[in-house]
Amino acid sequence: MTINDTFVWPTGFYTDGVQAGLRDKNDMGWLVSKVPAAAAGTYTTSQFVAAPTKLCRQLISTHHRLQAIVMNSVIANSCTGQVGWDNALAEQAQVAEKLEIDPELVGVASTGLIGSQLPMQKIHAGIAALQLKQDVGVTTAVMTTDTHAKIASTQLLIDGKQVTITGFAKGSGMIHPKMATMLGFVFTDANISGLQLQGLLSASVDETFNQITVDGDTSTNDMVTVMANGLADNHLLTADHPDYAAFAAALSGVLAKLAQGIAADGEGATKLVEVNIHHAATHAQAQHAAKAIVGSNLVKAALFGDDPNWGRIIAALGQTSVKIDVEHVAISINGFTLVKDSLAVPFDEATVKQAMTSHKLTIVVDLNAGDADGQAWGCDLTYNYVKINASYRS
Amino acid sequence: MTINDTFVWPTGFYTDGVQAGLRDKNDMGWLVSKVPAAAAGTYTTSQFVAAPTKLCRQLISTHHRLQAIVMNSVIANSCTGQVGWDNALAEQAQVAEKLEIDPELVGVASTGLIGSQLPMQKIHAGIAALQLKQDVGVTTAVMTTDTHAKIASTQLLIDGKQVTITGFAKGSGMIHPKMATMLGFVFTDANISGLQLQGLLSASVDETFNQITVDGDTSTNDMVTVMANGLADNHLLTADHPDYAAFAAALSGVLAKLAQGIAADGEGATKLVEVNIHHAATHAQAQHAAKAIVGSNLVKAALFGDDPNWGRIIAALGQTSVKIDVEHVAISINGFTLVKDSLAVPFDEATVKQAMTSHKLTIVVDLNAGDADGQAWGCDLTYNYVKINASYRS
Repeated sequence: MTINDTFVWPTGFYTDGVQAGLRDKNDMGWLVSKVPAAAAGTYTTSQFVAAPTKLCRQLISTHHRLQAIVMNSVIANSCTGQVGWDNALAEQAQVAEKLEIDPELVGVASTGLIGSQLPMQKIHAGIAALQLKQDVGVTTAVMTTDTHAKIASTQLLIDGKQVTITGFAKGSGMIHPKMATMLGFVFTDANISGLQLQGLLSASVDETFNQITVDGDTSTNDMVTVMANGLADNHLLTADHPDYAAFAAALSGVLAKLAQGIAADGEGATKLVEVNIHHAATHAQAQHAAKAIVGSNLVKAALFGDDPNWGRIIAALGQTSVKIDVEHVAISINGFTLVKDSLAVPFDEATVKQAMTSHKLTIVVDLNAGDADGQAWGCDLTYNYVKINASYRS
Repeated sequence: MTINDTFVWPTGFYTDGVQAGLRDKNDMGWLVSKVPAAAAGTYTTSQFVAAPTKLCRQLISTHHRLQAIVMNSVIANSCTGQVGWDNALAEQAQVAEKLEIDPELVGVASTGLIGSQLPMQKIHAGIAALQLKQDVGVTTAVMTTDTHAKIASTQLLIDGKQVTITGFAKGSGMIHPKMATMLGFVFTDANISGLQLQGLLSASVDETFNQITVDGDTSTNDMVTVMANGLADNHLLTADHPDYAAFAAALSGVLAKLAQGIAADGEGATKLVEVNIHHAATHAQAQHAAKAIVGSNLVKAALFGDDPNWGRIIAALGQTSVKIDVEHVAISINGFTLVKDSLAVPFDEATVKQAMTSHKLTIVVDLNAGDADGQAWGCDLTYNYVKINASYRS
């Protein structure tokens, strides 16, 4: 299965992006299906849930269906009280009226600054300008500090019908999901029920979006939604469908590519970091250990400096409660063994430092404590991360 | 009670610092009592415990007594296997022989790079050079990336006798204690048992060293020890002694000053950040919330930039499981109210930004969820933090 980063529209989906004047480039967009689609979602675990996120959670968990999602960047519509909630409903109503569909089929997604109200005049004008086009402008409309859009698409045959799964995501800082931290929109023409889709999404998110971290912070607006409009005309995808596993793998591949894209485009990042844990006691422990290492500021700063300072990895690992054979840990970076049996292995400093200038670093840690593996993705910690976040509001 | 940052030697204590050639300034030191002292300690919670830390933990928990601690910086003697353990024992033996005391009265403390063996020839020469002096050089000998020594001292009368409590500490990065993350040495001439001292230390560390964070990382060598040699000649300090509470408060004051000193001197820090949580459901929840906020990279980067971006505080708080009245949270920074009832309060941006250039920022967050308070300390996240840790080994 190949996951591409070109934008392919599944049958019956429209996207558009416009500049509503929230900033000097695309800032609003939408994703619309020709017909109501089965829908699934995962949402922020923050106790402060933004109005649009709360609205989508409510819609999807009640009806398992959506036909459109309207999106904006710049203002998160979070910590905005009753006014913010009413504004989200006003967006929903306007889109429903424009598309002549039930408001309960319209979701709203916002990302940006917490605590400010949406400028509704501009928002209404933005919605009025959105069209039923196939325009990739939607992918840049949701970007905040992202340096580029994150897109993933794949196709497979189900019952001899071509099924397309496409997704795009935004997210660069405040990335440390415990469900899903960022905005991600996946849409497909596959025929599958909302509940089935929810099961696949939840399982897949645990292995993808929930295993990335940029800075350990969870936002109030995080959400991943999947819409499936059934226009590929395959037989309904249930667990006993012969192509169910293939569809699940394709969906998971799209989610994984988006998640890794977010990690690689972490605020200020110069490197994508992948941590592979081997021989953990359980998969959950392997996942936890991988995320602890990839989330350590000290590890991340060392990787930015091309510094094979494995003591940072030992420290990050040691402070977890994951089962470790503390006398027999092994560590390698990009194929160079640095530690065996928890002791330093002599290596050529210049050679390893040179190898670490790569844009993709793979850290492998063997815990010698069982048979389970785990994986997580992140990025290095750089001057630019600090710079970006010292003046986010300015 | 006044806690000073001048170094006052309690009766019968000696300190010295020398340059053993591990680097081009003081790198070894010791703390010696004229007579065996009651001793207490708290240690790293890392699963990887450095040889010297393991040795002190074993000595103090078995005998509750120490007479001397020898210290070095540059090399942590961590992840060094049997050779490292034997080297720690060799240091212990040499100090015991030099002082003509039982090796079981000699502790060892190391801090620095993980994974390298101590150059024992230099270490032995360093120990040979240490003298029974009252020399503050010990406080710089243990420094790594610290920009200055952290010292705290206080005096009080117990049974009409003057009792002195003095401490010094090192720690700048890898600071996120779950017991005690860094090296701290407190010594007093008070007369108190080792077990009683342990109880006071453990309780006090929970409110001081365990409430600071620089970068969320826990080292393999962290330790705080307290030695009490009894030479002030007060009656034994038991829980029913009339001055017990005063002694406990004085000890806690010294620990708090050292802990805050470490936070303020965090790697690259320009500001000490104090977070006060009010109206939490429990003290533990208040402590947790305070530490979550002061530990957030996004909060810390915003504070570096004098940016009153309270959404970062909301995000850090929201991702905890601490009980919050999400509709009625209030937030202020250095006396300026930014949020009330979880909504933005208009403030003069320029005035608040100017106030935030202060070297001490106090964030107050009201959770409206109970009657408990809590506190934590940290620092801002700066370019220099990244710079220091991108090339720690170079």
